[in-house]
Amino acid sequence: MTKPTISTVAVVGTGVIGRSWMLLLARAGCHTRIYDCDPAKVEEAVQWLEEDLELNRQDGLLSAEEAKATRDRVTFHHSLGEALNGVGYVQESGPERMELKQALYADLDRAADPAAILGSSTSGLEMTKIAAGLTGARRCIVTHPVNPPHVIPVVEILAGKETDRQVVDRTCAFLVSVGQTPVVVNFYLPGFLLNRMQAALVREAINLVESGAADVNAVDAVICDGLGLRWALMGPFGVANTNADGGVREYFSRYKQAYLGLMNNLGSTPSFDPALIEQLGKATDAMVGNAPRAEIRRWRDRLVRKIRAVKEGDPGP
Amino acid sequence: MTKPTISTVAVVGTGVIGRSWMLLLARAGCHTRIYDCDPAKVEEAVQWLEEDLELNRQDGLLSAEEAKATRDRVTFHHSLGEALNGVGYVQESGPERMELKQALYADLDRAADPAAILGSSTSGLEMTKIAAGLTGARRCIVTHPVNPPHVIPVVEILAGKETDRQVVDRTCAFLVSVGQTPVVVNFYLPGFLLNRMQAALVREAINLVESGAADVNAVDAVICDGLGLRWALMGPFGVANTNADGGVREYFSRYKQAYLGLMNNLGSTPSFDPALIEQLGKATDAMVGNAPRAEIRRWRDRLVRKIRAVKEGDPGP
Repeated sequence: MTKPTISTVAVVGTGVIGRSWMLLLARAGCHTRIYDCDPAKVEEAVQWLEEDLELNRQDGLLSAEEAKATRDRVTFHHSLGEALNGVGYVQESGPERMELKQALYADLDRAADPAAILGSSTSGLEMTKIAAGLTGARRCIVTHPVNPPHVIPVVEILAGKETDRQVVDRTCAFLVSVGQTPVVVNFYLPGFLLNRMQAALVREAINLVESGAADVNAVDAVICDGLGLRWALMGPFGVANTNADGGVREYFSRYKQAYLGLMNNLGSTPSFDPALIEQLGKATDAMVGNAPRAEIRRWRDRLVRKIRAVKEGDPGP
Repeated sequence: MTKPTISTVAVVGTGVIGRSWMLLLARAGCHTRIYDCDPAKVEEAVQWLEEDLELNRQDGLLSAEEAKATRDRVTFHHSLGEALNGVGYVQESGPERMELKQALYADLDRAADPAAILGSSTSGLEMTKIAAGLTGARRCIVTHPVNPPHVIPVVEILAGKETDRQVVDRTCAFLVSVGQTPVVVNFYLPGFLLNRMQAALVREAINLVESGAADVNAVDAVICDGLGLRWALMGPFGVANTNADGGVREYFSRYKQAYLGLMNNLGSTPSFDPALIEQLGKATDAMVGNAPRAEIRRWRDRLVRKIRAVKEGDPGP
């Protein structure tokens, strides 16, 4: 991994997403200052960090030295002002409510060095509105990760109307330098890119089960033993390009009628009523069995890292 | 790998999908008899087989002995009757036109031993119609693979109205025994499961590019460095179950409003008009660069097998 382009950073808000940012930033070599308005959350986050580093060590993903060095790069602070002192990048992961985000951003903008970037983990709020009226609106930007960011590299980058183009570039360069994959979204739209594509697939998946066409475990197998194996390597355009000798042009020309027919036949938005959710819950329980969720997550994290190592070891032609 | 439950099989139609079935069945230990009404296709398929086995050997995926044994299990035949002699399973991969499929199935039903299963690679035709009126309609079944089947394990299984329940079970058991993942579709619907879910995601992916929200490479990165890393391990229900402490029930209850809003905001079916296809083609060319398609496919096949090996080596809790 390269050296981080920004050496001292802060993580503000240390819930499930914030603590994962803390781990990834510290592991990448950043001095990582953490703060949460609820000190109990900080304690939980540090405990989680130590446990996760130990599990990583046991799984052979980190050496004992790397684990210790990562832990040592994290410091916690009792005030926002102290946490942000000397920091070049802030990752904010507070609650997803506009008025709280706005208040928090006003505090961040006051406390942070003017050159510091203020990135937000928000999955749905617009930076134009969050940073409206702030002196430092130009350095405010959405940096939306995928759960859990210390395992999954994509980060969606959205500028607000006031955000400097240079801040976009510096944010992308920084995220690349800590091992993430920044992806620029050109303008605000609900769900950005990732949650929209996920919602499209989830909608059809639920329709297939609700209509009785397939069981939950059949739908999941089609993804994890089918489409997901290609999608771990290539997105829909890469797949289309690979599957026809003439590439994307031939693929979408040849299958145009088939796709039009299918797309116009897809199911509509499901009800999500309690009976449907209970049906999905019962079937998923039967599929998953008795494994504790923490064990499943640990397995997911371990395997995603192994898959990433396979890709990094053989990046292709 | 287990021993195949059916030791002698036939592959009828040796185009891109048929030849891939030939490779997977022979590699799994089946004596594999191949036939195509166009002898040139058979020659091409055998040449492809030998080249692919050699590449596999170079990539360390097969030993020289395994490659030779696989090749030696394949025999080609000059008539359908000869190819089907003594065979317990037939994988048909002919053209996707109902009248041709019906004529071919009439021939298969006449020539094959009454106990043999007649599986079809069709991605869109109904077995009820293909096998209508055949004496052996009870042993006719859709066994739709994902391209390429010798790399991707999922096979969609659809019975026709006349198909014996026992044939469904025997087909699934056979496919498991040769290393595939059969998935039962409970009734016919256009695109079955896999192509419907793929179409749902592709529709939104194209909309994101057409609307200008993102570039082709951004959309693809969101999949291969984001959602696809989870989907290589779990389907949408497994992901939902893992992402909330209370499992699927909590996940879909908590995110119900967010999903309803997003799903109702998704784009409609794109035009696939020539200008759009050209835009996608140009952007994909820029993303992919100059690598020859054959090299990309070889990389994809190699990495999918490595990912499957990661999963097999650590199947989780």
